[in-house]
Amino acid sequence: MKNSAILLLQCPDQKGLNAALAEFIYKHDGNILHYEQHVDKEEGLFLARIEWDLAGFRMELKDFPREFGPIAERLRAKWDLAQSAHKPRVALLVSKYDHCLVDLLYRWHSGELRCEIPLILSNHTDAKRHADFYGIPYHVIAVSKENKAEAERRQLELLRENGVELVVLARYMQVLSAEFIRHYPNRIINIHHSFLPAFIGAKPHHQAFERGVKLIGATAHYVTEVLDDGPIIEQGVARISHRDELEDLVAKGRDLEKVVLSKAVGWHAESRIILHGKKTVIFD
Amino acid sequence: MKNSAILLLQCPDQKGLNAALAEFIYKHDGNILHYEQHVDKEEGLFLARIEWDLAGFRMELKDFPREFGPIAERLRAKWDLAQSAHKPRVALLVSKYDHCLVDLLYRWHSGELRCEIPLILSNHTDAKRHADFYGIPYHVIAVSKENKAEAERRQLELLRENGVELVVLARYMQVLSAEFIRHYPNRIINIHHSFLPAFIGAKPHHQAFERGVKLIGATAHYVTEVLDDGPIIEQGVARISHRDELEDLVAKGRDLEKVVLSKAVGWHAESRIILHGKKTVIFD
Amino acid sequence: MKNSAILLLQCPDQKGLNAALAEFIYKHDGNILHYEQHVDKEEGLFLARIEWDLAGFRMELKDFPREFGPIAERLRAKWDLAQSAHKPRVALLVSKYDHCLVDLLYRWHSGELRCEIPLILSNHTDAKRHADFYGIPYHVIAVSKENKAEAERRQLELLRENGVELVVLARYMQVLSAEFIRHYPNRIINIHHSFLPAFIGAKPHHQAFERGVKLIGATAHYVTEVLDDGPIIEQGVARISHRDELEDLVAKGRDLEKVVLSKAVGWHAESRIILHGKKTVIFD
Amino acid sequence: MKNSAILLLQCPDQKGLNAALAEFIYKHDGNILHYEQHVDKEEGLFLARIEWDLAGFRMELKDFPREFGPIAERLRAKWDLAQSAHKPRVALLVSKYDHCLVDLLYRWHSGELRCEIPLILSNHTDAKRHADFYGIPYHVIAVSKENKAEAERRQLELLRENGVELVVLARYMQVLSAEFIRHYPNRIINIHHSFLPAFIGAKPHHQAFERGVKLIGATAHYVTEVLDDGPIIEQGVARISHRDELEDLVAKGRDLEKVVLSKAVGWHAESRIILHGKKTVIFD
Repeated sequence: MKNSAILLLQCPDQKGLNAALAEFIYKHDGNILHYEQHVDKEEGLFLARIEWDLAGFRMELKDFPREFGPIAERLRAKWDLAQSAHKPRVALLVSKYDHCLVDLLYRWHSGELRCEIPLILSNHTDAKRHADFYGIPYHVIAVSKENKAEAERRQLELLRENGVELVVLARYMQVLSAEFIRHYPNRIINIHHSFLPAFIGAKPHHQAFERGVKLIGATAHYVTEVLDDGPIIEQGVARISHRDELEDLVAKGRDLEKVVLSKAVGWHAESRIILHGKKTVIFD
Repeated sequence: MKNSAILLLQCPDQKGLNAALAEFIYKHDGNILHYEQHVDKEEGLFLARIEWDLAGFRMELKDFPREFGPIAERLRAKWDLAQSAHKPRVALLVSKYDHCLVDLLYRWHSGELRCEIPLILSNHTDAKRHADFYGIPYHVIAVSKENKAEAERRQLELLRENGVELVVLARYMQVLSAEFIRHYPNRIINIHHSFLPAFIGAKPHHQAFERGVKLIGATAHYVTEVLDDGPIIEQGVARISHRDELEDLVAKGRDLEKVVLSKAVGWHAESRIILHGKKTVIFD
Repeated sequence: MKNSAILLLQCPDQKGLNAALAEFIYKHDGNILHYEQHVDKEEGLFLARIEWDLAGFRMELKDFPREFGPIAERLRAKWDLAQSAHKPRVALLVSKYDHCLVDLLYRWHSGELRCEIPLILSNHTDAKRHADFYGIPYHVIAVSKENKAEAERRQLELLRENGVELVVLARYMQVLSAEFIRHYPNRIINIHHSFLPAFIGAKPHHQAFERGVKLIGATAHYVTEVLDDGPIIEQGVARISHRDELEDLVAKGRDLEKVVLSKAVGWHAESRIILHGKKTVIFD
Repeated sequence: MKNSAILLLQCPDQKGLNAALAEFIYKHDGNILHYEQHVDKEEGLFLARIEWDLAGFRMELKDFPREFGPIAERLRAKWDLAQSAHKPRVALLVSKYDHCLVDLLYRWHSGELRCEIPLILSNHTDAKRHADFYGIPYHVIAVSKENKAEAERRQLELLRENGVELVVLARYMQVLSAEFIRHYPNRIINIHHSFLPAFIGAKPHHQAFERGVKLIGATAHYVTEVLDDGPIIEQGVARISHRDELEDLVAKGRDLEKVVLSKAVGWHAESRIILHGKKTVIFD
């Protein structure tokens, strides 16, 4: 099993960045496994993902901030350090449609998706049997207009108690409050069943069917306070024709949603995403 | 060379439609080459495309309306009859970006696109050399806010003089007036460089770039009075990443636009499209 | 719930076929829901799928052979009649990789895949827990070079006892004998993890990785006596790059296999496939 | 206009490579525009593409080999240096099908494809008018079994006289001799109209049609002495169905071939390809 460190970094572009970063790793005897960088020319922004082997690396990761801090400060860099051995703790939220949930659980169980899933939250009991099959605690918290604040309070408490680092809305059909979102900034991933920004909001398949499009889509994105407007992580499309009725769109959509959402969650879990402004850079 | 007749028909769904239509062709000794039908269940609408060999068909096509009329009336059917030997007369309109124009001309010249192209209209001189190469009259009519009505009057006159049956906006960057469109209802095809209904209006690639989408698209649609809102004929998408700058989006978009537009024009020219409401049925 | 009859038919092409077929349905007051035909010009073969509503149809289906027989004989037609209300009995065979099995079971359970699954056969115990979850009998029959004939005899017995009409090899890693295949001619569907005919035989992902292809594929096909050579039902591909290691190919392959196999099984179950020579016609 | 240098490099993987390379560029005040590296774990091979701005770079490129040589030697690296301002000289070879030729010429003329095209070679006169339109010398050298050696001798002479650096077989239907290929090792790109390694050799569309595949493909690859076996640069596929006759496959194939070949030529021209063993790494 690979034991590596991953640095995600963004800073104003300037000469010598790659040299400074690569030199720093090398100075401590790190063997770089992956090195990718990108320059956003419009914003003059340098973005990089560096992954190196911890075998032979002559620094404790707990000392990394102290050692790397001065360099980051000089570069005016925002950065995050992750460790491949650490599996992020992911909470899955689901309502009645459980295809994404079941798909994520299978990928997690088979080892394809490297994360912990300490709990599943739902406003319905329907998916509980799948949670039971995989031995994951399943909490039902009904949500209504009246109790929404209280329901979210209980949800947040459960997330906190379980040390959740990423919240995945696996076809969770409730809109989260701005208050909720603020607890997990850029840490909530949603799957929307359209090719955003087309068909924002409710019933996108119905909208697509009415409009007569020839392709349907699915979009995984980080959740922000504006509905279906957060930074896009991944999108997929499938061809449809007049022979497809609404239920066929829905069925084809399910296959898209599963693949698109699981990719997004996997990239996040493996520290492959840098967010800048409204865009994502995916170091896949 | 195939010499066939093509009937496009739509009518309220009811029992016996296929029998009535197939029987009618058979009664006159027609050999059906393609027979496709579709039922739109929501609208209770039956749509069909029937193509039969004219060799051995014991009826002059000029007599078809008289012979078929009573049946159509009984079925309350709207219908069109086309002949594969007839190549529809298509006018191409273009501004400065000439990739779609050049692509359509090549397909036409190689015989892939079965139509006549009696003229090209443009508000710029740039593409004239390609028209000259293929020996097609190229008319430059400058369009400004001031002279728009007059310019359209001259365009319409040229279209009429040339017996044009289909107008193709091959990246023609002027919005046509409602008055113009009324002269060619469901006879104007436009290529929009986005996956409609996302990124309606001006500079869709810029909009896509800003929004951070992971796929770009192109849409061929019939032109109606509402901008970018007409019935969609065909759509395509291409994957992009953060590595693609705006000019890469534009380049990838060109390849999409060429394929999507040429398919749409080809289907129209071969009488493969039935329009109903805001949707198209493509009998490909 | 739709209660319809489906006729699949192939015969030498000639005039009047559509009239004869549509007229026959209409004569007995059948309301045609879908009517699709295709002419294979090379072989001069007419192929059709006709689906009509049984509500109001004035004939018992048990009488269909007697009534339709003379017409079929006159047309020299091969035909099959199915009923949408009948769910075909499907046996799933699996070895250790269970992603296709789990996917098919979920689709079946959710109602997307319309069939019965009376049993699962495996040469390993690994997937039993999924069978148990969905309440489907799971039979383990170990297969070795020595006991292969005996093992197949027991498998065939179980298939026969359970009235199985379709055998699906959901990543079953044993090659079936010609003898076995003869019991289910054109009734065994396999998923091969390559874009056939590329990478026939063992370890296609390894072969693809070595060859340096830029897309990987999956192919669902009917099983014949020649390995990986049967008629293709459906294929899919996914883009890969140098960044993908072998295990990434395998992971991307899984998503392809699930979608491609489930489509093929669904089409077979809904009587949407006609086989002629080495080709399939899919009336989707 | 960007004026940059591009270093393509491969060497045995080891610690400190990124540091050494980035440091070397930085030491001479180079501003890195793109930096991508890849490690092929199976072969323990490090591969990198580094592009930096020549504005402000304090070294003449003619001195680069002297300055960089000792480092390369220490790393046991194979490397190539290119300059974005240098447009490689590309010869196009074509037979009768001219869609790829016309497509490449248009992309070249519009500036999308950054190269010089000093000449076109053909064994037929058919495509000459397109060469004339774009003002490019067109040489017809008929090739037969008898004169092949002599014909190739004349072709090689023309390529040499014109300082050709890359040979593009844009649907050139003659097999080149091993002798010819040896003059342009890894400098000849061919487009094969199938998804290699499926349908090697003659008439791949016919083979695909006979086999009943559901997708057709196109493959751009470097030419080696074994037919259709060279390293793959890019591949594309398009969906087909029973409704597509052979001529439809050919038409859909043309669109694939144009896009796939032009991408491959563009990547080569922009020094985005590293070849190692039988594989390509594309730094796009």
